[in-house]
Order: sequence, then C-alpha cells, then structure tokens
Amino acid sequence: MKKTVVGLSLLTGLLFSVGAQAQFAKPEDAIKYRKAGFTLTAAHFGRLGAMAQGKVPFDAKAAAESADVLAVVSKLPFTAFVEGSDKGETRAKPEIWKESAKFKEAADKNGAEMAKLVAAAKTGNLDNLKAAFGSAAPTCKACHDNFRKD
Amino acid sequence: MKKTVVGLSLLTGLLFSVGAQAQFAKPEDAIKYRKAGFTLTAAHFGRLGAMAQGKVPFDAKAAAESADVLAVVSKLPFTAFVEGSDKGETRAKPEIWKESAKFKEAADKNGAEMAKLVAAAKTGNLDNLKAAFGSAAPTCKACHDNFRKD
Repeated sequence: MKKTVVGLSLLTGLLFSVGAQAQFAKPEDAIKYRKAGFTLTAAHFGRLGAMAQGKVPFDAKAAAESADVLAVVSKLPFTAFVEGSDKGETRAKPEIWKESAKFKEAADKNGAEMAKLVAAAKTGNLDNLKAAFGSAAPTCKACHDNFRKD
Repeated sequence: MKKTVVGLSLLTGLLFSVGAQAQFAKPEDAIKYRKAGFTLTAAHFGRLGAMAQGKVPFDAKAAAESADVLAVVSKLPFTAFVEGSDKGETRAKPEIWKESAKFKEAADKNGAEMAKLVAAAKTGNLDNLKAAFGSAAPTCKACHDNFRKD
C-alpha cells in the first residue's frame, strides 16, 4: 500500500505525500499553517541576522535559542504546499505545483543551508554565524523571487 | 545590571523581560509572532488529539514528530505578550497585562502539561497519549476562556 502511494506520487510528480495532504482538513488550514511557519522562521532568522550584521550585540545564548527554534519551524512550511492550496489568501505562485521538482530543489537547498546555520549559531562563535547567515540568506531570497508573488 | 532589571521587573509586576521586549521592533510583530506560534501549536495539538480521540489511527512516528514540533512551538507565544501589544489585530484580553501573575500561572500550567504531553506522545503508547491529551486540553481552554476575547 505504502509502496503504491510512493510509486503513484513519483509517477504523477506530486511533491507531497498523501500523508501530508491528510494533515489538513481544508486547503486554507495548510495556507495558515505554512504562513505561521514562515512567520516564525523569518523572526528567528531575523534575530540571527541582526547579530550577524552587527545590528545588535552577539548573544551566544540567544543565538543558540533561535537556532533551536529555527531547526524546527523552518521545515514546517514545506510540508504544507499541498494540492489545492494554491488558491485563497496566499502569495504562492502556481509554479510551486507546476514546476514541483524545481521547487523541491529550492526547498532542499534552503533546508541544507538552514541546517548549517543552526549548527553555526550554536557554536558560540560570531564569525561562524556571520558566514552561515551570509550563505543561507540567498536561498530564502531565491525561493521568494521565483515562487512568491509580490 | 541584570539584577537591577530582574528586581525592577518583580517590583513593577512586569511579566516579560526587557530582553523579550527587545525582540520585537513593533507591537504588531509580537502579535503576528504569537499568533503564528498558536497556529502551529493548535495544528500539532490537534493531530495528537485526533489520534487520542480515535478520529485517525494511532501513528507512533507521526505522534513523535508532532511532539517534537509542539515542544518548541507551544512555548513561543508566551514570549510575545509584550507591553504595548494589547492593541491591534489581537483577541488578547487586557487581563493578560492587568493580572499578569494570574496569566503567568495559567501559562506555566499549560507549559507543564505540554511537556507531559510531549513526553507521552513519544512513548509510542496510545494510552499514554490519551491520558496526557485529556489532562492538557483543559489548560488550553482555561486560558482561552479567561484571557482571549470571543
């Protein structure tokens, strides 16, 4: 059964599993969920960025705390671009579903950078944080440019 | 300096630290942040509840995953009821700030129940999940009844 579902997903090029789909009763629930995930991601990415860019003093404890949050929340939005959630209160572009392989690639790239940033933010070293932040930021922007309406 | 700030907070009955306050540039940022935290908390609390109440089959892996998310996101809203964030797009009642000791007590109670639920959801045992969910749910409701507008 599981094998069939996986096979089907690959065949039809669906980005998200039937399991993920089932987590949301309505498309608008998925939209609200992913927006919430992005809001928290942006907030904690922003806190790390403020330190990396010298706008606020480096605080190793606060950086590690934001890293712990980011490790969890930055993954959540990408579980919620389910079929049917392209309409409504969303800036998601149709390309997310039309070019799902490209979107997945961009999401994976961002995920890898986020993981590196999380690790760097927990080293207690500002230079590590600066480097990882500088490397991660363009992977946020790339997705916004290509897959989010203005 | 730190001691002075803590002393001041206790004296004035402020619920939240100066540090927390500084995390949000504008009150509306704090409101958006806590709403996002509640959205994700409700989503994953709901997924555990659906299993606890037999609405969906128990899935130990999915339960553990939701527990990991809940452990992080359920704490976030309570860092964001900062001074000045009582106005705007919020259903937060003035009592949150006027009766801050009572609100803190309710938040702590919820936090303790969430921690128990997270632990229970990771045991892989449905009965543990049912018990912890049944115990946690009223601590969500209590806060909604007392501190959230209809």
